[in-house]
Amino acid sequence: MSSETTTAAPGASGKDNQHLAPKSDIEISQAAKMRPIVEVARDKLGIPAEYVQPYGHYKAKISLDYVASLDAKPDGKLILVTAISPTPAGEGKTTTTVGLGDALNYIGKKAAICLREPSLGPCFGVKGGAAGGGYAQVVPMEDINLHFTGDFHAIGVAHNLLSALVDNHIYWGNALGLDGRRIAWRRVVDMNDRSLRSIVSSLGGVANGFPREDGFDITVASEVMAIFCLASNFADLQRRLGDIIVGQTREKKNIRASELKAAGSMAALLKDAIAPNLVQTLENNPAFIHGGPFANIAHGCNSAIATKSALKLADYVVTEAGFGADLGAEKFFDIKCRKAGLKPDVTVIVATIRALKMHGGVAKDDLKAENVEALEKGFANLKRHIANVRKFGVPVIVSVNRFSSDTEAEIEALKKLTAGEGVECVLADHWGSGGPGAAELAQTVVKTIETQPSNFKPLYADDLPLVEKVRTIAKELYGAADISFDASVKTRFAELEKEGFGHLPVCIAKTQYSFSTDPNAKGAPSGFTIPVRELRLSAGAEFVVVICGDIMTMPGLPKVPAANNIEVDANGRISGLF
Amino acid sequence: MSSETTTAAPGASGKDNQHLAPKSDIEISQAAKMRPIVEVARDKLGIPAEYVQPYGHYKAKISLDYVASLDAKPDGKLILVTAISPTPAGEGKTTTTVGLGDALNYIGKKAAICLREPSLGPCFGVKGGAAGGGYAQVVPMEDINLHFTGDFHAIGVAHNLLSALVDNHIYWGNALGLDGRRIAWRRVVDMNDRSLRSIVSSLGGVANGFPREDGFDITVASEVMAIFCLASNFADLQRRLGDIIVGQTREKKNIRASELKAAGSMAALLKDAIAPNLVQTLENNPAFIHGGPFANIAHGCNSAIATKSALKLADYVVTEAGFGADLGAEKFFDIKCRKAGLKPDVTVIVATIRALKMHGGVAKDDLKAENVEALEKGFANLKRHIANVRKFGVPVIVSVNRFSSDTEAEIEALKKLTAGEGVECVLADHWGSGGPGAAELAQTVVKTIETQPSNFKPLYADDLPLVEKVRTIAKELYGAADISFDASVKTRFAELEKEGFGHLPVCIAKTQYSFSTDPNAKGAPSGFTIPVRELRLSAGAEFVVVICGDIMTMPGLPKVPAANNIEVDANGRISGLF
Repeated sequence: MSSETTTAAPGASGKDNQHLAPKSDIEISQAAKMRPIVEVARDKLGIPAEYVQPYGHYKAKISLDYVASLDAKPDGKLILVTAISPTPAGEGKTTTTVGLGDALNYIGKKAAICLREPSLGPCFGVKGGAAGGGYAQVVPMEDINLHFTGDFHAIGVAHNLLSALVDNHIYWGNALGLDGRRIAWRRVVDMNDRSLRSIVSSLGGVANGFPREDGFDITVASEVMAIFCLASNFADLQRRLGDIIVGQTREKKNIRASELKAAGSMAALLKDAIAPNLVQTLENNPAFIHGGPFANIAHGCNSAIATKSALKLADYVVTEAGFGADLGAEKFFDIKCRKAGLKPDVTVIVATIRALKMHGGVAKDDLKAENVEALEKGFANLKRHIANVRKFGVPVIVSVNRFSSDTEAEIEALKKLTAGEGVECVLADHWGSGGPGAAELAQTVVKTIETQPSNFKPLYADDLPLVEKVRTIAKELYGAADISFDASVKTRFAELEKEGFGHLPVCIAKTQYSFSTDPNAKGAPSGFTIPVRELRLSAGAEFVVVICGDIMTMPGLPKVPAANNIEVDANGRISGLF
Repeated sequence: MSSETTTAAPGASGKDNQHLAPKSDIEISQAAKMRPIVEVARDKLGIPAEYVQPYGHYKAKISLDYVASLDAKPDGKLILVTAISPTPAGEGKTTTTVGLGDALNYIGKKAAICLREPSLGPCFGVKGGAAGGGYAQVVPMEDINLHFTGDFHAIGVAHNLLSALVDNHIYWGNALGLDGRRIAWRRVVDMNDRSLRSIVSSLGGVANGFPREDGFDITVASEVMAIFCLASNFADLQRRLGDIIVGQTREKKNIRASELKAAGSMAALLKDAIAPNLVQTLENNPAFIHGGPFANIAHGCNSAIATKSALKLADYVVTEAGFGADLGAEKFFDIKCRKAGLKPDVTVIVATIRALKMHGGVAKDDLKAENVEALEKGFANLKRHIANVRKFGVPVIVSVNRFSSDTEAEIEALKKLTAGEGVECVLADHWGSGGPGAAELAQTVVKTIETQPSNFKPLYADDLPLVEKVRTIAKELYGAADISFDASVKTRFAELEKEGFGHLPVCIAKTQYSFSTDPNAKGAPSGFTIPVRELRLSAGAEFVVVICGDIMTMPGLPKVPAANNIEVDANGRISGLF
């Protein structure tokens, strides 16, 4: 049952940490003094009120017309926050993104952050939302974690409209000749509901259609979500929706959503959602939170539209990518930046001494004890991530989230190790102190951007064959000896090349806990093989998903779900959600 | 396949009519000059801006705290708009509700309207939204028909959370002993998707649970929707959610949502949705649009909270009920008014000469020809609805929507017939002329309220046995000779009485096209029997659904769905939706 809790809460972090701050996340969040979002938009980003579509007083969407009017403005600087391979100790990538954004504002810069929207389903499963933590949070946290501005609902219903159109087409005569065994388009629901993973649908006789195998994924796993996050504008969104391949005929001819005349309706459902959402941090600084694709079968970054909007509106934009740098940063660079024409200026790799000690072999219960040796051993994980990011031509900074259990000797050792790699290592305590706690990190980021020009380039060229793209990532970033696959995967590689999809980037779905496909291989394993199990074409999102391991696209609920403890009091205040 | 298109679009009307106005609904709607909703709330209802939660500039939710602060204020007058038994000719109930609201404002009264939210799914099926028509519309029409303020998405996800908790409970050991064959709680999706009507879920082995039969309804058919619309406040909502019966044990013991600890989480998901939505008519008058339960397996009225809020804020409140008066008005009176403590002051029954001619036996294609005889024959339908409404002690007015094909002789005949019943019959042309077109109707409504006191009382007492409640409605309102049912239904009546549900009102689900259960029996049939097929307990909504015929809780899409023609242009303007 280990798969039950994986990949469910992108962006969640810092929750079971013994940090320096004494208050709980929810206490801090509920004590926040929010400013009306129209004022934040006006005072921090210069957006006139008529281009701010409010959703209540503290959430808004920014008009894409307004953003388009800024086209001639130069872009701000783009800062990616990524992390070492995640461990149960927690790293704090989202809190660093929020804290760095606040810190840049604190030292006088015009900065905004870009985050993914959290998935609703997992809120009711393993306890936890995803809006930062401590004094580095985005607010209003309950709203962000529940329906927010309705984007995920819009994405879910657009997805399910296409599903209904597929079966409706078959029902009314199947003029396109879809093979019921080769339907690739499942259904979605924004809920952790394992009983819908595998179903037989259209039972009950003639009026209900032709029975077939089907299933549901969680909404964040929808290809519509990935499309939403990669589309450069509304027209591009509509084009990509039409390009979705819903299945094949008996002769294995691909059938696209456009052939079902679905794209216009799906786009109509996404018309409002596609505009980026603006909220604020606890320190009233602007935060774009928009889109939230899975980081395994998709690329795990907030929308390109939000990032590009923020770059027009702020001088510094801090964003994050899912999982560790091997998956998250790689996809950010090779998929999002490549396709959206973004040029990241600096990368911050987040680590904690606790997590590095786990990579060095320490069990979770023993993390409080000083252990410089384990730290030095676990540093191998960070070291490889540093080297990997440099392969994209982007300068690197290491940010270490402070914990009360960190000892001076451990801190000293880590600084020495990073210095040995020629990388600045900054201690940060935005969790306990907000923006001021990350001021040194902000200064280092600004200095690095000013002194170390980025020479960003993707890891591989578009025209490299798909199989070689996978091999390049596996060998150059993961440290694998090679990749392996059976004859059916080999055939599929060839089919995709022949069908004209060879130029697409690859999106590797594997465990986030190790460079290898063995989640228990901590540190920096090498010499292993990456077995490619399956290829899935996301023709609308424009990448090929390469499945290397068990990937869960519909989480389940635990025995005692968080839902059991959520209550709303007479004043409408929610408890138990975080 | 006749069932495919029934019950799908509550409130839709007036679309294929040859009315007096020359422009299309969408042309009129897109030319509307909307006022910021904050101004409408302030100027028309006196609501301070801080209690208006905006959703964009033209939609808002009104704070329940503010409404509660008005508790000591006397209620305005409550006007129900209902109709004759619907026909393909169209009656125009929603347009009359909108037009009468505008007309009351036009003659100087402080008036608001209350409507149901339209269901999203059907927008993509048989062409048509549901926001009035002609010059009697609510705006922004595209938003209202698509996601609006997200209420239906919230209701859907609250429903599906409970579904997931049911299967999760079974998965983790089934401590409550739920019998997988006796799960009464299905799943929902806001889409016309026939292939989900009947499924087998939890396939795929141990990790995915215990396979069982299941299925999806459209979101508006959810009991959560009915609860949402009948709850008197947030605490009552939470209590009712806990009272939902999700299934039974092998020993037929009812298991409630509260036993799964689901009510708090479901309520948290509905926390924002429960506040009523405010939009405006084309004439910038206030329109509450909130909740939208099916009118067959539920009671088919907008939320009690919206109606009660409007009554505190306006002197006249115009609302509508689903289908004809036999189903819609009866449920409005016997379920909504009984439970919410509402006292309707007057009822407007909407008819058209075209529709009455259809009840008199004229085919749709022949409606343009004058036919006084058929009109006189079809009047029997209107006559029975008039008599029925009077049984609830509420004064009646007949409003006739003008069509260009209506002749002087037909109008004359109808006025004479209604006069014979002692009822005022007013011609209205809000469709072609907006509020001024219904000024006479508004004057008649005001005069009737001032001169004819309402003596509202439900049709039957709470303590009448369930079977007698059904018999009373069938005989007194439908004109049936009796009801019939087999031994299993008889047993179920007895079980429900024994389990303590005998005091609940009944909610009859039958065809809306006839007083009988034969949709082809137009006019005012009598002597027939109403066969009761099945009883379903909605323990949270607090009524017993009495199924008398084929009831579709998940519509399908037609061969050429409206979705095929929906497009969004480069300026974000939607076409093909209406």
